[in-house]
Amino acid sequence: MRKDIDMHAIGIDIGGTKIAGALVREDGSIAKADRTPTDAADSRSIENAVVQMIESLSDGAEVSAVGVAAAGFIDAERSTVYYAPNINWRNEPFRDRLERRVDLPIIIENDANAAGWAEFRFGAGRPVSDMVILTIGTGVGGAIVSGGRLFRGGFGAAAELGHLCVVPGGLPCGCGARGCIEQYGSGRALLRLSNELADAGGIGTGLAEARKRAGGVLTGTEVSELLVLEDPGAVAALRELGHSLGQACASLAAVLDPQMFVFGGGVAQAGDLLLDPIRTAFLDHLPARGYHPEPEFMIAELVNDAGVVGAADLARQFAENK
Amino acid sequence: MRKDIDMHAIGIDIGGTKIAGALVREDGSIAKADRTPTDAADSRSIENAVVQMIESLSDGAEVSAVGVAAAGFIDAERSTVYYAPNINWRNEPFRDRLERRVDLPIIIENDANAAGWAEFRFGAGRPVSDMVILTIGTGVGGAIVSGGRLFRGGFGAAAELGHLCVVPGGLPCGCGARGCIEQYGSGRALLRLSNELADAGGIGTGLAEARKRAGGVLTGTEVSELLVLEDPGAVAALRELGHSLGQACASLAAVLDPQMFVFGGGVAQAGDLLLDPIRTAFLDHLPARGYHPEPEFMIAELVNDAGVVGAADLARQFAENK
Repeated sequence: MRKDIDMHAIGIDIGGTKIAGALVREDGSIAKADRTPTDAADSRSIENAVVQMIESLSDGAEVSAVGVAAAGFIDAERSTVYYAPNINWRNEPFRDRLERRVDLPIIIENDANAAGWAEFRFGAGRPVSDMVILTIGTGVGGAIVSGGRLFRGGFGAAAELGHLCVVPGGLPCGCGARGCIEQYGSGRALLRLSNELADAGGIGTGLAEARKRAGGVLTGTEVSELLVLEDPGAVAALRELGHSLGQACASLAAVLDPQMFVFGGGVAQAGDLLLDPIRTAFLDHLPARGYHPEPEFMIAELVNDAGVVGAADLARQFAENK
Repeated sequence: MRKDIDMHAIGIDIGGTKIAGALVREDGSIAKADRTPTDAADSRSIENAVVQMIESLSDGAEVSAVGVAAAGFIDAERSTVYYAPNINWRNEPFRDRLERRVDLPIIIENDANAAGWAEFRFGAGRPVSDMVILTIGTGVGGAIVSGGRLFRGGFGAAAELGHLCVVPGGLPCGCGARGCIEQYGSGRALLRLSNELADAGGIGTGLAEARKRAGGVLTGTEVSELLVLEDPGAVAALRELGHSLGQACASLAAVLDPQMFVFGGGVAQAGDLLLDPIRTAFLDHLPARGYHPEPEFMIAELVNDAGVVGAADLARQFAENK
């Protein structure tokens, strides 16, 4: 299965509203891209759309393998989707279904794992072997790389880092538990904190005014704009996010001891405004600080397409080791 | 370096008060054992004692490698001890020192990692590939096995599971942080809770009476005896320990997704009295419960010698892959 020249892999990322696909070179660059809307309610139409996309992307190219990323729990064999929240899937043998129609090695991978893998191979994680990535979007996603390999866990559902508990008995989370870091370190948490600061007045007046201008509802757009201006209220809300994330990283360091933490997703675009409070809280909470080496904290380099690039690269690796 | 018949490895475990050593067969059984007191203040005498023990254990035997376990942070190359709390070591190149005097492949390994590895290879972990072990002694130790390999982390200091934060801003821990599971799930925590229950009266009268009989100080001995009798106070104290540990395991499952959690150490001798509340609290706090497979909870099978057996087996594996 191994070829060395011009061998591409295909990455597909099934999202809640669209399916993105790309023909990816060995260096992680994209040779050809495609996208189509998702009808999340219709599992059969998703399968058809993925198959069509594979056919169209592989047309005229040498393709070694296909990686399909989706939000949800995938089994350790990267074959069956235990559960996909965006699509109506429970225990769906999606690899088998695709393999009946596509004559290429296929893997199914969790979308955060795929994106994290891309960041490890082609982004900020390049210099290290052990990395943890937290993706701060609406929620908090995660991936773990250990010894140069993606860490999947015994059942395939590892690195659900958004569901590390940081406040016992805290805010309810969509996962059914309480106090998950997702409720304190996500884009949604940033909006909640921003609204609370706007209500409280004081340094939140910038937020309150922006909320008024936006017609009474503060969205990510307003908060991002205020962060660019370093508005004290928006910066304070982000600092609280960073504080929670830094604390979570201290626990993650005790468990995983990575050489690097990487932060991706929309909120991480704030750069040092987010990283500085993360680093401070991390060091304040790090067990046995000063008695062992400490990790670096970085912002992700890949912004778009990380999911498809990572899925393609993992599929290529799978085919090479088959 | 590979031989198939009668090839032994040596495991050494440097503790706070003694050095234990054994000549270990490939099946994990012990062919010959040795021990000597530790003079923890004198690093040179520890080196001499380890070298002597290796010479005496290897006398007349075919030995492939030596594994030396010690409490503390060991680097990812299993060569340098960053920090050993029991001994006066900071950045000690212990493998180099030993290799100058012993003509065998040598690795240095964290003691909890070595003991956890033995449990994986020869104990409760045999049926699985991904296991987390928590050792509930005076403190809480841990080890992680992933895909059949010991998980060391990027700098070698992973699996410090006793220092997962479970109560932000909670009880101060010896590591300098606060709220570590070690303060809520260890033997020391069991004694604290038992004393508090004895003070409070009620179901704690059994504890209060035992404390009186013991001359005013409740130790592990009294609490263990009461647990054997299923004294309601001692059982309640242990239940609270289990509750904290189960919560911690829910977070660990989100990160590591093991197939099995194993509990070792003195407190785990309580068996189901500990496992039942752990399981209950785990399920109560597990993110996305019911949407992915759940791990088993087991008591460790190896009680003594796990450290030396695991160190020897890891050394053998290291020599075979050299």
